[in-house]
Amino acid sequence: MKITNLLYQILAYAFFIQTLFPQEITGFLPQNVGTHIEWERKFLSLPKAGNCEKHLFILTEEPHPAGSEASDKVVKYIDSVFKSYGLTSKVFEYWAYLPYPEEVSLELIQPEVVKFELKETTWLWDKDTYDDNIFTFYNAYSPDGVVEGQVVYVNYGLPEDYKKLKELGVDVKGKIVIARYGKSFRGVKAKVAEENGALGLIIYSDPMDDGYMKGDVYPRGPWRPEEAVQRGSIYYMFEYPGDPLTPGYPALKDAKRISPESAKSLPKIPTMPVSYKIAKKILENLSGMNVPEGWQGGLPFAYHVGPGPAKVKMKIKSDWKVRRIQNVVAELKGFVEPEKKIILGNHHDAWVYGAVDPNSGTSVMLETARTLSELVKSGWKPKRSILFCAWDAEEYGLIGSTEWVEENLKDLSENAIVYVNIDAAVSGKNFNAISVPSLDNFIQEVIKNVNDPESGNSIFYEMWLKQNKENGKKYNPDSAKVKIGRLGSGSDYTAFLDYAGIPSIDLSFSGNYGVYHSQLDNFYWMKNFGDPSFKYHETMVKIVGLILMRLSSCDYLPFDYFNYAIEIEKYINDIDSIFSEELKSANLNLSGLKDKVSKLKDLTMELKEKQKMLLQIETQKIERKFTPKEGLWNRNWYKHRIYAPGYYQGYGYQSLPGITEALSFGNFEVAKNEIKLLEKILDDVNSYLQNLLKTKSGNK
Amino acid sequence: MKITNLLYQILAYAFFIQTLFPQEITGFLPQNVGTHIEWERKFLSLPKAGNCEKHLFILTEEPHPAGSEASDKVVKYIDSVFKSYGLTSKVFEYWAYLPYPEEVSLELIQPEVVKFELKETTWLWDKDTYDDNIFTFYNAYSPDGVVEGQVVYVNYGLPEDYKKLKELGVDVKGKIVIARYGKSFRGVKAKVAEENGALGLIIYSDPMDDGYMKGDVYPRGPWRPEEAVQRGSIYYMFEYPGDPLTPGYPALKDAKRISPESAKSLPKIPTMPVSYKIAKKILENLSGMNVPEGWQGGLPFAYHVGPGPAKVKMKIKSDWKVRRIQNVVAELKGFVEPEKKIILGNHHDAWVYGAVDPNSGTSVMLETARTLSELVKSGWKPKRSILFCAWDAEEYGLIGSTEWVEENLKDLSENAIVYVNIDAAVSGKNFNAISVPSLDNFIQEVIKNVNDPESGNSIFYEMWLKQNKENGKKYNPDSAKVKIGRLGSGSDYTAFLDYAGIPSIDLSFSGNYGVYHSQLDNFYWMKNFGDPSFKYHETMVKIVGLILMRLSSCDYLPFDYFNYAIEIEKYINDIDSIFSEELKSANLNLSGLKDKVSKLKDLTMELKEKQKMLLQIETQKIERKFTPKEGLWNRNWYKHRIYAPGYYQGYGYQSLPGITEALSFGNFEVAKNEIKLLEKILDDVNSYLQNLLKTKSGNK
Repeated sequence: MKITNLLYQILAYAFFIQTLFPQEITGFLPQNVGTHIEWERKFLSLPKAGNCEKHLFILTEEPHPAGSEASDKVVKYIDSVFKSYGLTSKVFEYWAYLPYPEEVSLELIQPEVVKFELKETTWLWDKDTYDDNIFTFYNAYSPDGVVEGQVVYVNYGLPEDYKKLKELGVDVKGKIVIARYGKSFRGVKAKVAEENGALGLIIYSDPMDDGYMKGDVYPRGPWRPEEAVQRGSIYYMFEYPGDPLTPGYPALKDAKRISPESAKSLPKIPTMPVSYKIAKKILENLSGMNVPEGWQGGLPFAYHVGPGPAKVKMKIKSDWKVRRIQNVVAELKGFVEPEKKIILGNHHDAWVYGAVDPNSGTSVMLETARTLSELVKSGWKPKRSILFCAWDAEEYGLIGSTEWVEENLKDLSENAIVYVNIDAAVSGKNFNAISVPSLDNFIQEVIKNVNDPESGNSIFYEMWLKQNKENGKKYNPDSAKVKIGRLGSGSDYTAFLDYAGIPSIDLSFSGNYGVYHSQLDNFYWMKNFGDPSFKYHETMVKIVGLILMRLSSCDYLPFDYFNYAIEIEKYINDIDSIFSEELKSANLNLSGLKDKVSKLKDLTMELKEKQKMLLQIETQKIERKFTPKEGLWNRNWYKHRIYAPGYYQGYGYQSLPGITEALSFGNFEVAKNEIKLLEKILDDVNSYLQNLLKTKSGNK
Repeated sequence: MKITNLLYQILAYAFFIQTLFPQEITGFLPQNVGTHIEWERKFLSLPKAGNCEKHLFILTEEPHPAGSEASDKVVKYIDSVFKSYGLTSKVFEYWAYLPYPEEVSLELIQPEVVKFELKETTWLWDKDTYDDNIFTFYNAYSPDGVVEGQVVYVNYGLPEDYKKLKELGVDVKGKIVIARYGKSFRGVKAKVAEENGALGLIIYSDPMDDGYMKGDVYPRGPWRPEEAVQRGSIYYMFEYPGDPLTPGYPALKDAKRISPESAKSLPKIPTMPVSYKIAKKILENLSGMNVPEGWQGGLPFAYHVGPGPAKVKMKIKSDWKVRRIQNVVAELKGFVEPEKKIILGNHHDAWVYGAVDPNSGTSVMLETARTLSELVKSGWKPKRSILFCAWDAEEYGLIGSTEWVEENLKDLSENAIVYVNIDAAVSGKNFNAISVPSLDNFIQEVIKNVNDPESGNSIFYEMWLKQNKENGKKYNPDSAKVKIGRLGSGSDYTAFLDYAGIPSIDLSFSGNYGVYHSQLDNFYWMKNFGDPSFKYHETMVKIVGLILMRLSSCDYLPFDYFNYAIEIEKYINDIDSIFSEELKSANLNLSGLKDKVSKLKDLTMELKEKQKMLLQIETQKIERKFTPKEGLWNRNWYKHRIYAPGYYQGYGYQSLPGITEALSFGNFEVAKNEIKLLEKILDDVNSYLQNLLKTKSGNK
């Protein structure tokens, strides 16, 4: 017993010593690190799993798609919770063109007649599965129409899948294509089907991708059961996100609206999602050739491409209306530069209940708001303001966030430091972060200071372990790095990064999330499979809280642009090797870009070395320089020249999209201009940095 | 019309010119190449697909397992066909211990009671599926017994699968394990299950491995339907092949026999095969943990490891008897050295009808016998004899061939040049060859001279294309090589190579062979899926014929031992890198081996350069030096020190098995001796070569 006591005393002493020699935190001057760490330690004791659970329970009470009455209740709840913490909270209204399903039907009419029921199963233990207001099997923004035709299986419906079909001699013109979910955004599947001449599109969830081939299905496990459908928008977000009728400007009540016919972002062929129970009935009635390698899914027969004999008739009719949507924005005011803002955001609308997507993020946001408010009440004085934003109509097309960014572009451009997104924040235990390269190191530092609630190891270590599990590497705490991904699209950071040029981060704990956009993404699922103890919600509050605390309190901004420069250099070299023939034939060369990025590396390295002496320098604005006024040649709304969502991916990112897409579409004149433009951008950044370093070097 | 005629004349002329400047053929002196090529050209016009089809139809008339009455009819047919071609044909009888199924049953007794029907489906269009003499679901040599227990799923039943289960805390002691076919020989699965303490073993064909996940199942396609079972022997062939009761000596009628109890090659736990229809019922009733990554098969639910709740009761009772087996051996006598022999072999016994396995090979052999006999009648005079051997009881444990090799060891050792095996010769269109390294180049030369019947390209080019399809290499006829595999076990070359040290080759055209060892491996399947036109049978006759013609007529033997030396060097280096720690800790080193193999490379290179001047040198005997009298430490019957079937693989080969297996089992004393032994072997080969090159160099 004595020995145990002694051991505790030694441990306590070691802990005390550690507080005397605090770690380094990028962004803080050595003399301020200790105080900040004390505040962080206080903060880390505040988040409560139980609060997240309570919020989630309330937020997921009813199906609440954007524009619905239930959504209005959610808005009022969020607003009242913010206010109860003493924050200034405000509701921003926009008016967006949102279709609701009115009549959707699908029939197999050959080789036998089957009228499919477009409703998920009810389960006795879960009253949520009985609600009458659950949307049917619906892909929002599908045009109205009745189409009938033989079916062709197109795998994931990617451009290369159609190319393969052409090689096999299979033409989809006049056919109804059936594609499985996965690999690309569903709107891209609709676009590619349209380009290939299909009459209509059916999208289904194959058991290979999120059903029984992954693990046990609901109710035995978390994966998608045979009748659970993935709803979702097929909005052409790769053209522009936000309200279809007000591209590039805020959808205020009295805004001038374009006609739906002229909206480039509206899909052109009838599209609907089905479960794999329905897909099975269609796919097992396809003949024609056997599918190419890699196309076989998890249904228990050999897949064929068709066409036919399966023939289907689908009907889609929506109630098309301009509906009110509402963002809730709450502010925790900064004490030194209140106009400068760190923005935390997530949407609140859901296709059905949305326990994971989006409400896990919303409950994390509410608990973060509470804990940081309490910290302020205890005396913490962040220099900069923190905004908590609950966006509406993300599911339809990132509408709430996009309209707000379009409305507040000037202020954001001047004052926004970083945007942090926490959509679908918790569906399991695996931490993921994606961001711009300048924030890689910042994120890694943060997650070294938050522990995994199960293992007790740092989130950083757990992430390292998962990324290096296979190759048997040894963990070296001094040199270990984790891979931070890059931002494509599919959530509300899009307008911030791609349109306004604000450095962004997206965070989540992912898991065996087989119920995405089905009625089963509800409280019961979260409580039984996703995060039963809500400890990963609590942990996400800690991570998000530390990020907001550091960014709002730091002495200098912790961006690492040298890392950004290295990535840009890599992207340039990638183009050089992938498009070497095109570049040669078009007489284009990248040597100008290479020189400039090499200079950028030198300057950003110098910036990095001197950053501690360069207080109050607004290095966040470097990112703005990547978003010139001229948009991308093939989708004008998108401005960012280092990243855009890949045109034919939707979720994934495309590096140097202007040059890359021009080259891959063979548009060499545009490629030339885009190379020039990027040269100009790099020149601008370089002279900005040169001036900065010259002017401020005297400050030593 | 005129122009076409002219074109034909030009082509004919080009052909004529080509005959004037014939290609080089390794094994032939320049002055003899032309004549030989003329004979080859004559030969290539003789094989007829229709003859192969006719033989196959007759050979597959009834189920004919070894020792059965139907098998006797097959023997008589083969013997009479050989005789009708004017060959000397002789039947060799042996008496082997062969069990027949007497009573086999399987019941699910928990969570519900299901008595499984152990019979494949009947199909109206195929009378073969109605035969009463088809063996039930049977793994020959399973011990008799009744066992009952909860079930555990063990994936492929490899040692690493059980290791994984142990890590998960799942013990198979006292349980009945269910393993899927694939990755290892089924006898190895039984051995590993026994070693791990399982009560019994069920082996099933997962649809992932040869069912609907591969393509359409019978009758729509060639793959395994849900009720088709893979029968097969679980004989511990890795201990020794051949009759269990006469290890290492011929099973003549009055031979002294050991007791079954003392036969190391007899399995110890009840084992039976089932279809995936039955396996589904068992596997879907397993709970316990979800399976590890890579263990999920193609049945439409998430697999669990168990144990239970599924509980089964299996009963196996065999009719154990010493039965007569019969090899048919026909001879085409050589004209110069008739005692020297090239041996072509394949078994004739089948689990059921055996259209692919083995009769495609037998019909090829019969047509090869006919065409070569005709050639002799036209005046072709091979120097050496050719033997055509139809082995019995291969399916039980390579028994017919093994007993014959054991009986004729002295003569074979002295006179056998090469053994060529053509078991399961045609199940599709993809050519495969495996051999000892000294025959790689020989095989490649041959298949450059036979064309694929569909594409018209050479078999060599087609094989190169398949092996290099993915990596986008360009075909260069001068430097292109194809990969020839190495011999493990699973067919009748085993006794020839591993016991007698005779250079061997195994050939096949493989395809979508989903009916292996089921009743559906019958004439209907071959005619509809395997080789409907029998053109690939005909092509195999051409390949085999050229091989036999070249080996029986060549001026010097076309072995390339330099290639063998290179492979041996690679294997030594592999051991050095894989077992570096073990070698160090046991104070063993491979430098002696490395020196000797380096010398071997020099000498074999010299041999290769001078081979044209070294006629009548019996270089086939170099292979014999790899098979010393002392067998491998852990399975004495196996003598070859460069290759053996991997102890825990069965079909796959293990290079340098003596050293490798000693090291991997941690038996360092044995490893030391095995290193010494291999040094001695290499020394022997080196001095043999030195003498040879010294003595004969004067011959120039």
